[in-house]
Amino acid sequence: MSTVVKAAIIGATGYGGVELIRLLAGHPQVEVTSVVSSSSAGAPIAEGFPHLLEIQTGMLDDVDPALIKSKADVVFLATPAGVASKIAPSLLAEGLKVIDLSGDHRLKDRAEYETWYKKEAAAQEYLDRAVFGLCEVYGDSVRGADLLSNPGCFPTATLLGLVPAVKAGMIDPASIVIDAKSGVSGAGRGLSLGNHYAEINENFKAYKLNKHQHIPEIEQVLSDAAGKKIVTTFSTHLVPMTRGIMSTMYATMNGTYANEDFVSQYRNYYEGRHFVRIRANGTYPATKEVAGSNYCDIGFAVDPRTNRVTIVSVIDNLVKGAAGQAIQNLNLMMGWDESLGLNFVPVYP
Amino acid sequence: MSTVVKAAIIGATGYGGVELIRLLAGHPQVEVTSVVSSSSAGAPIAEGFPHLLEIQTGMLDDVDPALIKSKADVVFLATPAGVASKIAPSLLAEGLKVIDLSGDHRLKDRAEYETWYKKEAAAQEYLDRAVFGLCEVYGDSVRGADLLSNPGCFPTATLLGLVPAVKAGMIDPASIVIDAKSGVSGAGRGLSLGNHYAEINENFKAYKLNKHQHIPEIEQVLSDAAGKKIVTTFSTHLVPMTRGIMSTMYATMNGTYANEDFVSQYRNYYEGRHFVRIRANGTYPATKEVAGSNYCDIGFAVDPRTNRVTIVSVIDNLVKGAAGQAIQNLNLMMGWDESLGLNFVPVYP
Amino acid sequence: MSTVVKAAIIGATGYGGVELIRLLAGHPQVEVTSVVSSSSAGAPIAEGFPHLLEIQTGMLDDVDPALIKSKADVVFLATPAGVASKIAPSLLAEGLKVIDLSGDHRLKDRAEYETWYKKEAAAQEYLDRAVFGLCEVYGDSVRGADLLSNPGCFPTATLLGLVPAVKAGMIDPASIVIDAKSGVSGAGRGLSLGNHYAEINENFKAYKLNKHQHIPEIEQVLSDAAGKKIVTTFSTHLVPMTRGIMSTMYATMNGTYANEDFVSQYRNYYEGRHFVRIRANGTYPATKEVAGSNYCDIGFAVDPRTNRVTIVSVIDNLVKGAAGQAIQNLNLMMGWDESLGLNFVPVYP
Amino acid sequence: MSTVVKAAIIGATGYGGVELIRLLAGHPQVEVTSVVSSSSAGAPIAEGFPHLLEIQTGMLDDVDPALIKSKADVVFLATPAGVASKIAPSLLAEGLKVIDLSGDHRLKDRAEYETWYKKEAAAQEYLDRAVFGLCEVYGDSVRGADLLSNPGCFPTATLLGLVPAVKAGMIDPASIVIDAKSGVSGAGRGLSLGNHYAEINENFKAYKLNKHQHIPEIEQVLSDAAGKKIVTTFSTHLVPMTRGIMSTMYATMNGTYANEDFVSQYRNYYEGRHFVRIRANGTYPATKEVAGSNYCDIGFAVDPRTNRVTIVSVIDNLVKGAAGQAIQNLNLMMGWDESLGLNFVPVYP
Repeated sequence: MSTVVKAAIIGATGYGGVELIRLLAGHPQVEVTSVVSSSSAGAPIAEGFPHLLEIQTGMLDDVDPALIKSKADVVFLATPAGVASKIAPSLLAEGLKVIDLSGDHRLKDRAEYETWYKKEAAAQEYLDRAVFGLCEVYGDSVRGADLLSNPGCFPTATLLGLVPAVKAGMIDPASIVIDAKSGVSGAGRGLSLGNHYAEINENFKAYKLNKHQHIPEIEQVLSDAAGKKIVTTFSTHLVPMTRGIMSTMYATMNGTYANEDFVSQYRNYYEGRHFVRIRANGTYPATKEVAGSNYCDIGFAVDPRTNRVTIVSVIDNLVKGAAGQAIQNLNLMMGWDESLGLNFVPVYP
Repeated sequence: MSTVVKAAIIGATGYGGVELIRLLAGHPQVEVTSVVSSSSAGAPIAEGFPHLLEIQTGMLDDVDPALIKSKADVVFLATPAGVASKIAPSLLAEGLKVIDLSGDHRLKDRAEYETWYKKEAAAQEYLDRAVFGLCEVYGDSVRGADLLSNPGCFPTATLLGLVPAVKAGMIDPASIVIDAKSGVSGAGRGLSLGNHYAEINENFKAYKLNKHQHIPEIEQVLSDAAGKKIVTTFSTHLVPMTRGIMSTMYATMNGTYANEDFVSQYRNYYEGRHFVRIRANGTYPATKEVAGSNYCDIGFAVDPRTNRVTIVSVIDNLVKGAAGQAIQNLNLMMGWDESLGLNFVPVYP
Repeated sequence: MSTVVKAAIIGATGYGGVELIRLLAGHPQVEVTSVVSSSSAGAPIAEGFPHLLEIQTGMLDDVDPALIKSKADVVFLATPAGVASKIAPSLLAEGLKVIDLSGDHRLKDRAEYETWYKKEAAAQEYLDRAVFGLCEVYGDSVRGADLLSNPGCFPTATLLGLVPAVKAGMIDPASIVIDAKSGVSGAGRGLSLGNHYAEINENFKAYKLNKHQHIPEIEQVLSDAAGKKIVTTFSTHLVPMTRGIMSTMYATMNGTYANEDFVSQYRNYYEGRHFVRIRANGTYPATKEVAGSNYCDIGFAVDPRTNRVTIVSVIDNLVKGAAGQAIQNLNLMMGWDESLGLNFVPVYP
Repeated sequence: MSTVVKAAIIGATGYGGVELIRLLAGHPQVEVTSVVSSSSAGAPIAEGFPHLLEIQTGMLDDVDPALIKSKADVVFLATPAGVASKIAPSLLAEGLKVIDLSGDHRLKDRAEYETWYKKEAAAQEYLDRAVFGLCEVYGDSVRGADLLSNPGCFPTATLLGLVPAVKAGMIDPASIVIDAKSGVSGAGRGLSLGNHYAEINENFKAYKLNKHQHIPEIEQVLSDAAGKKIVTTFSTHLVPMTRGIMSTMYATMNGTYANEDFVSQYRNYYEGRHFVRIRANGTYPATKEVAGSNYCDIGFAVDPRTNRVTIVSVIDNLVKGAAGQAIQNLNLMMGWDESLGLNFVPVYP
């Protein structure tokens, strides 16, 4: 017997929301019953996104917890920072399960949130209640969650690339340097010179050096894996492409290891997990090789000359870095196979 | 009871072949049992296409009709011009159904093929036997075909955009001018200065003006629709992007029509067909709005000043223009719903 | 003895203004003495455009005719539609020469302007006084002008590609269809979804079909060349690249001509002109081959099957389509060689 | 009295050679008198590069030292690795000055060259004779050189970003990690899947991790600056754009410094040098801000949390990273101002 879960998506005029619609359209046990937008309520869903014509018919709903409760069992929040913390309590109070794709419930420490996000943090009660859904690391806690905090795009690529080595003590966590690169869709659909085509095309930019709000999220998990407080160097760059994140990570090794040792440790750590693929010895992935899919691919380059290892991890920021991982979390919350409805083959070329 | 059809793909090192693998991975009634490459037989399928790691496992088979027959019921030929005409007869002799994605069986007139392709044509017997699979125009003939000739990418976008108006006598077929634009994947994976990144990026090029081998295919169908011999002006341009085709088509109207008249005629003509979407009055589609999907979207701009209509038609050249339409044809050949396994939402952004 | 002309640029926060700065930096007889911006007056010029650091030092001036007169001899107006018509009179009254890059002084008929631009037209007196600076067609009138109207980007590429054939009677002007394509910089630096990177990248769009405000400008010159009123079909498309325009133009030939006949007629027509290059028989240009330069390259493809000729014309929209042609016009106004300071080799690749 | 130097360019069918033609076209004291290509001798120069039509007329010469001597005073070698070491001796024997843009004369240690380049090294005599032309670091030695070795593109961006801090002892050289990114033109015009448009577009790739042949060149100069042997971690990535390099560099600081301290040290170090621009406190450059120009722009982000500094350095790989720096070296060799003929404003956007 198949259960069908009814889902609402709040924030459907952004790229995260619209990607949820794309991915859920083929999910065998989820039906999208409400698409919600505070700014465009009442308009046809396909008006702002003509690619959804004849696919997601119906009108945009308003942000009304009781209305949403009447239509849905679970709510995805694909909203900007500072919004989810305000609406999650009333949705939870209606008995809805909530999956928050924003940063509002990721940091356990309210002060950290307020330092990095420059906004008021969610109440501690909800931060305690939220489960951080980095599926391949914290999957066991996800089952049974009713408030799921979906990880950020950069932390997903970065942490899946670092946690197994840190846990195994193969690298010195204090030595880690993370050089991350992202396609432009990560910045959302809002307008700014920073995503104006003629400014970004044929251009490669560094931004928010040492200041990105994903830093405390990365440090929170690294510290958990290392068993001690870790601070880290994290840089972000904008790549003239739409989708894709690569984290190139550098660390000093605690001893002498070959590429094979990393391949072997990571394959063990991720055994049985569908969406992490460890590349063969001496090769590393490119972003297009996971585009449109929920995969995270990881490769290694050990350098005996410097005793450092370079770890390369790639994801599609809108899938494994947002909507795909959110659905993977829903699957885990429902006790389904984590890959249900998510077997998208990367779109190549 | 569900029938599962076993499929072989010949030419799996090209973009058409690899797109068939992507699309068929989710088809509920097709299993890809053999992936064939004359140049790389024996190698793992994912070696040349790392995005298929852990998805399409197994080794590439050699081009051996008896071996293919032992594994498959239907064969997709995603081979360069001049190859399909040589191997189709032995595949058909083995009792396999054949779907040819190349140009070898599209033109009924051998002389036309030899003029435009500069190669020896298929035997007349096979040209007569082949059904031209422009699904929304010739779908009725497709049922029961054992040799299916899948249309070219430019003809698909162009003809779906022109046939209803020509059939209705709304435009003068002799006046048609077709200005087509394609992403670079249409040129395949072979190496040439013409697809070297630094030569193509930030560049817009016209090519093969009045000489493209898709011209006779377009004229064959237009002549059929008009009931008389039509010659036409057809230009192709290379767009610095990977996927997508737009045909912008101009014609003098036979009388006074408004946009609504075209919208209405096309909606009638394509009623009940899943993959053609007619845009609302006065709007027209962009290529990204169908990217990764099997849709063909069409819009109109009537100009009373010149008494011409401009018709805009877009597809993803690798999906509706190749692998997707081939699967749609298989669905029709098997008597299934034409959209079975093909409900990919466009990847946006 | 060399005269140095002092130039002011109004509208220096847009792409046209900043391109004037780039090109004039190397001009041997022009010195940019004032860069003007109403929105950012008082700020360092390089603040909004860091590429100008240590190159164009100094602060942005306010829009003040007397101040500008105290610093400059000639003023370039790189302002949005509707602005130049308001400020040109007071600049002319100060005795300044004015070169208007906007559309405000291009159309001789006020009603035409108001129909297509949806704004109030300039006074007829100034429309009569303005010389339309399509250098290779109207160069003789440019000498001595004090109010120069610089042509639009699409009209420049289109008209240089059509005028010689129309003047020679080789094509039927009523049959002309113009399919134009532009890079994104043509839309300026203002923010809109239409130039958001993730919306435009990997996308090809048609826009303003039959409605582009450059249509009456094209028709005005074509009518002049044909000696009778011409209406025409003109379409614009957005190419995912920053710079470049291609006009692909179709026309029925008045008689039987070969490619050589067009090459020969155009080489004669443009003899002695530095910036129009006619491609050899049977070849046609790509946009990158003129990028960053003031060239307009033109090629032909005659089709005996349809008795039509396809004409391909390319420019860099910011150079020959804006700032470069404006400087070429200044050179002509001053009696200098038209290529003075403009010998930029195309940036390739 | 102005001296005009006659220059020959060997390797004119590659991007380095063709960029020399572009930049030298406007040099007031250099005339390109011979363009040489072993593979295409006798063909018109503009045949393979139509953008040079009517600009660089004449035919390609063969590689013949005596012929070159009869036409030129100085020779630029824009040839692949392993070629310059073979032809430089005979050119020098003819009394020509030689500027080698390849890697053949950069490493003083033959064994290093052979380890990293997998080719036979130049004779030690020529390695000793060659001056390494990193202009802003070794400019004094350049004057009077007759065999000039032009630095690699990655070493130029990287070393200009590191040398002043290493010399001042502000950072620990052993801690340096270099994460470099390059546009595709750096890989040259040769054909490979690695520069096939559909493979590279919308893709971000890491390559040659810890194995790039520019590593020993970087280490040679860093060791010189540090006064001890330095090994370093250096990674390269391919960005889907044509031109531009960014090096993002990480190092542990030897003490407590603020951004201002780095700005101040670098401005002092590069005082009077035309082509290095140090960004204001807390800002860092993007690649497009130097595109088409000979600038190297550098910015800093100090992180007190980790006691590391992140240094961002950008160049145009074909200008400051190749042809532009080669001309700057020629200027120094001739005793001219280093910026002569090189004042190209960055092409923006």
